[in-house]
Amino acid sequence: MAPARVGAAGEILNKVNFAAPRRFTTALKSDLKETLFPDDPFHDFKGKPLNVKAKKALKYFVPIFEWLPKYNRKLFMHDLLAGITIASLAIPQGISYAKLANIPPLIGLYSSFVPPLIYSVFGSSKHIAVGTVAASSIIIAATIETKVNPTVNPQLYLNLVFTSTLISGVTQLILGVFRLGILVDFLSHSTITGFMGGTATLICLQQLKGILGLKHFTTHTDMVSVIRAIFKNRKEIRWESTVVGVIFLVFLQFTRFVKQKKPKLFWVSAIGPMVVVTSGCVFAYLAHAEKHGIAIVGHLRKGINPSSLKNLDFDPKYISAPIQAGLITAVIALAEGIAIGRSFAIMENEQIDGNKEMIAFGLMNIVGSVTSCYLTTGCKTQMTNVVMSMCMMLTLFFLAPLFSYTPLVALSAIIMSAMLGLIEYDKAYHLYKTDKFDFIICMVAFFGVAFISMDVGLMLSVGLALLRALLYVARPQSSKLGNIPDTNLYRDVEQYPGAIGIPKTLILQLGSPIYFANSGYLRERILRWVRDEKANKASQGDDVEYVLLDLGGVTSIDITGVETLVEIFRSLEVKEIKVVIVNPRLEVMEKLTVTHFIDKIGKERVFLSIEDAIEGCKFSLTRQRDFGSEEC
Amino acid sequence: MAPARVGAAGEILNKVNFAAPRRFTTALKSDLKETLFPDDPFHDFKGKPLNVKAKKALKYFVPIFEWLPKYNRKLFMHDLLAGITIASLAIPQGISYAKLANIPPLIGLYSSFVPPLIYSVFGSSKHIAVGTVAASSIIIAATIETKVNPTVNPQLYLNLVFTSTLISGVTQLILGVFRLGILVDFLSHSTITGFMGGTATLICLQQLKGILGLKHFTTHTDMVSVIRAIFKNRKEIRWESTVVGVIFLVFLQFTRFVKQKKPKLFWVSAIGPMVVVTSGCVFAYLAHAEKHGIAIVGHLRKGINPSSLKNLDFDPKYISAPIQAGLITAVIALAEGIAIGRSFAIMENEQIDGNKEMIAFGLMNIVGSVTSCYLTTGCKTQMTNVVMSMCMMLTLFFLAPLFSYTPLVALSAIIMSAMLGLIEYDKAYHLYKTDKFDFIICMVAFFGVAFISMDVGLMLSVGLALLRALLYVARPQSSKLGNIPDTNLYRDVEQYPGAIGIPKTLILQLGSPIYFANSGYLRERILRWVRDEKANKASQGDDVEYVLLDLGGVTSIDITGVETLVEIFRSLEVKEIKVVIVNPRLEVMEKLTVTHFIDKIGKERVFLSIEDAIEGCKFSLTRQRDFGSEEC
Repeated sequence: MAPARVGAAGEILNKVNFAAPRRFTTALKSDLKETLFPDDPFHDFKGKPLNVKAKKALKYFVPIFEWLPKYNRKLFMHDLLAGITIASLAIPQGISYAKLANIPPLIGLYSSFVPPLIYSVFGSSKHIAVGTVAASSIIIAATIETKVNPTVNPQLYLNLVFTSTLISGVTQLILGVFRLGILVDFLSHSTITGFMGGTATLICLQQLKGILGLKHFTTHTDMVSVIRAIFKNRKEIRWESTVVGVIFLVFLQFTRFVKQKKPKLFWVSAIGPMVVVTSGCVFAYLAHAEKHGIAIVGHLRKGINPSSLKNLDFDPKYISAPIQAGLITAVIALAEGIAIGRSFAIMENEQIDGNKEMIAFGLMNIVGSVTSCYLTTGCKTQMTNVVMSMCMMLTLFFLAPLFSYTPLVALSAIIMSAMLGLIEYDKAYHLYKTDKFDFIICMVAFFGVAFISMDVGLMLSVGLALLRALLYVARPQSSKLGNIPDTNLYRDVEQYPGAIGIPKTLILQLGSPIYFANSGYLRERILRWVRDEKANKASQGDDVEYVLLDLGGVTSIDITGVETLVEIFRSLEVKEIKVVIVNPRLEVMEKLTVTHFIDKIGKERVFLSIEDAIEGCKFSLTRQRDFGSEEC
Repeated sequence: MAPARVGAAGEILNKVNFAAPRRFTTALKSDLKETLFPDDPFHDFKGKPLNVKAKKALKYFVPIFEWLPKYNRKLFMHDLLAGITIASLAIPQGISYAKLANIPPLIGLYSSFVPPLIYSVFGSSKHIAVGTVAASSIIIAATIETKVNPTVNPQLYLNLVFTSTLISGVTQLILGVFRLGILVDFLSHSTITGFMGGTATLICLQQLKGILGLKHFTTHTDMVSVIRAIFKNRKEIRWESTVVGVIFLVFLQFTRFVKQKKPKLFWVSAIGPMVVVTSGCVFAYLAHAEKHGIAIVGHLRKGINPSSLKNLDFDPKYISAPIQAGLITAVIALAEGIAIGRSFAIMENEQIDGNKEMIAFGLMNIVGSVTSCYLTTGCKTQMTNVVMSMCMMLTLFFLAPLFSYTPLVALSAIIMSAMLGLIEYDKAYHLYKTDKFDFIICMVAFFGVAFISMDVGLMLSVGLALLRALLYVARPQSSKLGNIPDTNLYRDVEQYPGAIGIPKTLILQLGSPIYFANSGYLRERILRWVRDEKANKASQGDDVEYVLLDLGGVTSIDITGVETLVEIFRSLEVKEIKVVIVNPRLEVMEKLTVTHFIDKIGKERVFLSIEDAIEGCKFSLTRQRDFGSEEC
């Protein structure tokens, strides 16, 4: 070892930094930054002149200024192709999901026109496609149906859908501005997997209505009542519709299969739904399908989005439903936004700030809600919103009526096939293999959603995850260290059986953080370590005289934690065992200083490394110390 | 440094332990043990023959078998003295707290007779005095008054008090048997300080009724309505009562003051209340006090506890109140039990198992509830329960009637002075000085209790504490390490500005635990570290080629955490930066193995120490590695 490390205690102690703690405001400021701006979005603003800063800020908040100047013909040609492809996916999906939300199909098309434009101005990624999603659609439907029956009073129902879109948008905007991404930090992968799987299962079951061509069904979303409804109305099942539906479904699943095998051929699955819809229309038109129990969408009028400003309805009699729907969908959108940001960071290696995306999503839903659009969100695909929304505009102007022949069964097939893709069996199995608790969290979400309701399922799962988070901090791991022969390394003896103990000494490595919720446990545990080690050493005719607490892994400690350390010092002192602490980190050292813990135990009890401590114990720790009995 | 540490990568890697992970059941078992039996109560049962085990078990669960055989005359003489002293405290307190709970004073005396006997059989400490406590008394009163008015229907009210005592007892028993001490791990010192202070303040205010000799008052416990009640009834204030009350209060506070100055004279404050009561009785008897507006307790009949089995009332109409009261008081008792255990561990250095105490408390309340006792709990004092309960029996047989002249004002003074002792200004100030957040938690409890209600105050405070606990895990600290000159130590460069960086290398120490709630943050943070370090090194014409992640301080990781590590590896690999991990601990290594993370990154990327890693980076890490894009 390096010579500087041996020698008198004084020399050793010089290394430990006993600097005065940072001021409260300083600490708070850095904590807040870590909490809300972990990615430090403004990092390259620092030390720039004001006008540059202003320009950067503009580009930051309105990214179109960032990419539009660099836009060129070559990029456009690529975008055009991608745009058309996706539009051909967006049209059938727009219609389908609108049906899912029990609103006129046209609204679905409208929703793929305006919001994408807004996003292309304020959104930061060119890889995010804006459109309606199944999950949000069904959440809105399920919530608002509790207040208004869409078949009895469609207009009021539609108005409430717009209202909830507005509320969701405003909420997203707020979440984004105040950077509350941390709210969804507790929506774990497991929860989301389970939730999505559960929702997908529900939606699939509901589509049986369309596939089987049923007239009557349930408004409830839980599995039991859906299955019961199918069974109750089994008389209405039309074989024609069923056959067509199955054919469509098989075809769509095949296109997905092709995409999986050859990612290059992604466009096959992209245009799949369009093929289904068009062929469906043609078939329905020629075969007069409605006469054979295959219902069709019905008239779709030409023209782009009318204003829906006057439709917004804040009648206190119903408002609770839109608010609930708005909040839930906003939070889910936030979770998805963050998740998308993550996936980009891995794949395209393009940094996306989930918090900031929320601002764009919020704006696009606010504008959407007054232009006859319902809730839209971003989904990850290779596409460009401008082109696709242009295609949508053309569709609305000229082609819309053609789609009026779309058989509902086609829509059901499209939805179903999309949903089947969202059930990740393999993921669940992987969870089961690797982390039983995560698996349970996932299953709770899945069955909660499938059998009770979507929000209950979500809450149960999140609650369970929180409980686990609390257990993490309530029972931090502590381990006994030994010296690995021929090195100056000290490692967990359980992990490295080769590691050998030091005579007269017990070295403990403490987990993090140390604070009120686990300090009681920690005291018990440490006293137990000492007890066991005493017995253990006694068998070798040795005894424990020094306990080294390695705080190197402890990132934070609170008052109760410090008091506990004092307690440990006292109760071991009574047993004539000297305790020293090793390598307290910055925050911990600060807390130890302000609570006068260091003064109490004396600086000679603090070491920078385990080796120093062992040396130090030999030399300096002769005199006893009285810790006084007052609270530290 | 030791020679064995340099050399080819192979040699280095031999040191890391890649053993197969423990089986799920094994891990679960040890986790459960840590969670429920941190103090390992049965440690000295191991490897004993069955009959010895049986004897130990008996002594463990019924400690009287432990101490009774060793009991001797000398011990008894000491106990006798202590017992009498405490009895003289218990009598007036029993009467006072019974008044506080709006039940006949006699019940208070009964409660100091039976429960102490039960505890002396099943309780493990000779330093715990059993008796009624103010907090529980007022909680019971406040809760049951919501259903039944004690003045209108005293018998029913009393029955419900017995019922809640039973429920509390049963709950305590369950908590103890299932060792749910962990439930109160989240009641921090700060919360309890605030809660106790708030309750004490309330009770003090309520005693103004007695001191001022008011006839009418409010049943509400919150500060506002109490003060309003006093103001409303100010006409009824009787100066005689007020004067006497103030005199008593001053006297009692003085005795407390004496005790503080000279702990040896603790008996002064112990008999203080008795002096107040007796002098009060004499005074009231001679001066016919009741004629001068000084109300007295009224007739107390002779004889020991009658049975109250038939009084237990489970009428569904009222049951909700006793249940609520029972649960709250049980949890609070658990918190106190654990706290007492702690304080013993520090002072008498006597290990008390809070969980086990609950069993004794539970039994004594169950028995108490059928012998006309109301809720009792243990408080820490130098005393012996047997002697004191004998004294109480004698009192009940012969002296009870004498106390019927006790002026209510005396009781109020006794309660008030006891409560004043519970408001720990200094503690609160200490919190403010050392930890602002703890201070807030404390204040929330205090004002919540004082202005809203006791349970709301408690919940708010606990909620805040939980929120903080979650923030702890949501934002673990990570820091950049540097080498401390002339040593092989690597420490936080922020803490040790002297520490110097390694060329081409960034060393990061990660906080614990790594899992879903913080993995997103961690990724952001690490990428930010890299970005900043690149900029930093660039200024010195250097670049970042290796990132060392020191996992030494990470105690646990979950799937999302592992996935995040993979993401980090991938996104840095794209930047042509090689990542290696250093010193993963047991649990972490297990999780990394089952998730095939190690296989993915290759064992040559795992090192036992930072120094090894730096060596290793120079030698072995030449070839690129493809992490594949499938989920890990």
